[in-house]
Amino acid sequence: MAADGSLRALGEFGLIARVKEGLARESSKTFLSVLRGIGDDAAVCKLTEEGSLLVTTDLLIEGVHFDLAYEPPETLGFKALAVNASDVGAMGGEPWGFVLALALPSGFSEDWLDRFLSGMAAFQDAHPCVALGGDTSKSPGGAFLCVTFLGRLSASSKLLARDGARPGDRILVTGIPGSSALGLNLLRRFGPSVLENQEARPFVEAYLKPRPPLVFSKEIAQKGLANAAIDISDGLVQDLGHIARLSNLRAFLELESIPVGGLEPMSRMLGIEASDLALAGGEDYGLILSVPAHSLNEVQRLGKRLNVAVHEVGRFEIGEQGVYICKEGQAPFMLKKGGYEHFRDESAHP
Amino acid sequence: MAADGSLRALGEFGLIARVKEGLARESSKTFLSVLRGIGDDAAVCKLTEEGSLLVTTDLLIEGVHFDLAYEPPETLGFKALAVNASDVGAMGGEPWGFVLALALPSGFSEDWLDRFLSGMAAFQDAHPCVALGGDTSKSPGGAFLCVTFLGRLSASSKLLARDGARPGDRILVTGIPGSSALGLNLLRRFGPSVLENQEARPFVEAYLKPRPPLVFSKEIAQKGLANAAIDISDGLVQDLGHIARLSNLRAFLELESIPVGGLEPMSRMLGIEASDLALAGGEDYGLILSVPAHSLNEVQRLGKRLNVAVHEVGRFEIGEQGVYICKEGQAPFMLKKGGYEHFRDESAHP
Repeated sequence: MAADGSLRALGEFGLIARVKEGLARESSKTFLSVLRGIGDDAAVCKLTEEGSLLVTTDLLIEGVHFDLAYEPPETLGFKALAVNASDVGAMGGEPWGFVLALALPSGFSEDWLDRFLSGMAAFQDAHPCVALGGDTSKSPGGAFLCVTFLGRLSASSKLLARDGARPGDRILVTGIPGSSALGLNLLRRFGPSVLENQEARPFVEAYLKPRPPLVFSKEIAQKGLANAAIDISDGLVQDLGHIARLSNLRAFLELESIPVGGLEPMSRMLGIEASDLALAGGEDYGLILSVPAHSLNEVQRLGKRLNVAVHEVGRFEIGEQGVYICKEGQAPFMLKKGGYEHFRDESAHP
Repeated sequence: MAADGSLRALGEFGLIARVKEGLARESSKTFLSVLRGIGDDAAVCKLTEEGSLLVTTDLLIEGVHFDLAYEPPETLGFKALAVNASDVGAMGGEPWGFVLALALPSGFSEDWLDRFLSGMAAFQDAHPCVALGGDTSKSPGGAFLCVTFLGRLSASSKLLARDGARPGDRILVTGIPGSSALGLNLLRRFGPSVLENQEARPFVEAYLKPRPPLVFSKEIAQKGLANAAIDISDGLVQDLGHIARLSNLRAFLELESIPVGGLEPMSRMLGIEASDLALAGGEDYGLILSVPAHSLNEVQRLGKRLNVAVHEVGRFEIGEQGVYICKEGQAPFMLKKGGYEHFRDESAHP
């Protein structure tokens, strides 16, 4: 048991391990068989010869994951589906359906609800998925959302699991990691009016309305171009660390290759190092991919075709598992802290 | 729009209707097809020729659905799965797997967590089901739990939908409706030590550790013995009202047939009418069944074999939809208020 016996000492990942251990059971052999249970972006349950069912759930809690002072209900509704669909995409699947659990203080307005639902509907328009049901409750505290998402993984696709990286694989990221964290910092500092600033806007939108590259990840899986993947929810180093740990490999991140240039004018104004945002900022919902060298060109071509920015930022090698940062003129080093962890981190997420 | 534009005026059922309307979409024809979406105990998605997937989700919120002052973590863990499995049972299916979203204040102890998980595991031992994954977060307020449950409905079973009741069907209930509400009232009045009282104990346990009749409901569906079913979560009259409304029938409840005798010594001591508990008390997680006359004997025999108390309490007839109470020597009447509704009810649930 941790020092003071509290969840603060156990931490989020200790808690997840405890849940996994406490509830481990064999699945029934007569129905779906569980190919992957707790511990990846989504569970994988074999359905038929045609494909598998992906299952994932995500909490969005006022005061932890969002702040109504600067998050409009429309983008919150969009985000509630996007962050779940991101987990489906990070396994190589495509969105199919969801249930919504919604606990709201009773003083919330119908107008707020309608705007929230219109944001969910906007996500459905972009990525067709069916609302299967849900539960509603009043909340004695703030707003509390929980979406459970079901996705489809075609039998001919290669599952993008966290434990599939191979020595020599290159590490690729989509988008500009740290964009969302920069956007959140801009919102906190300047309030919603910062959206009117043309330079700030893309970062604020990356935070408010994340757009996981769902068509791209589905095609990566269909073409078998990656050995492993994860979405960036807690930060590049931390999420990459999950692949390294589960694949039992050492990840080398080349700091100079990480696309931080775009973050810089705004991050400098805020007095934040762009590389800190890129390494530890969470909620980007881009992908980290582990790609064998012979597939690099095809992944880049796919990115160009689908308008998804793809950057090669490092490689996996045999060695003690972990994430090492490579900086010109220095020996590779590990970061003490590379992302957000619930219970341990007392500030708001991320 | 409701008078003051708040969710209080809209009410829980208005909110659900708004969600259903706002998020209505055709499901993809190429994967699972949705046989039933929002509006029943669980969604029904056709999987294969062998059967369908049931999907349901339930929130359990501290201060709304439970009070840690008198609910031990073990029974809360058990209940979190039982209330979801109850929805699967009320469709005629059997439990298969679940995801757990858990938001806890960081001051919670590891001991609390372990006891909570042991309660979930106790449910899994009674009704095998696999933990597929989940999400964890710190909570800025109280504890929030959300379980999404997947169940299996065999293709040879008759779906127990809410809209299937037929004129002339008898209304049957399992267990003693109101037991859970009585148990909650005893707990609130006397605290957890009331469990030491032998007369109080069964009611308190009905509240703390509900046991939906899952084997019974599965056999009812397999044998095709009922036309409709719902589980009693919000109260007998309110939940029966859902069947009446969706089947477009009038339900007559014979007050004298409702098994309230067992509630009486304890309810009298508390100064509560036993019939009020039976009609409006929620969280029993027994079943309301709509059974054709020719199947009554077989349902009763099944109840005896499985040790499930079954009482005939009324009938469905053609007429304006609604629930009418029949009391000897009075004309049938409707209750103003027959159960719990989120947002409208300001006291704790139920």
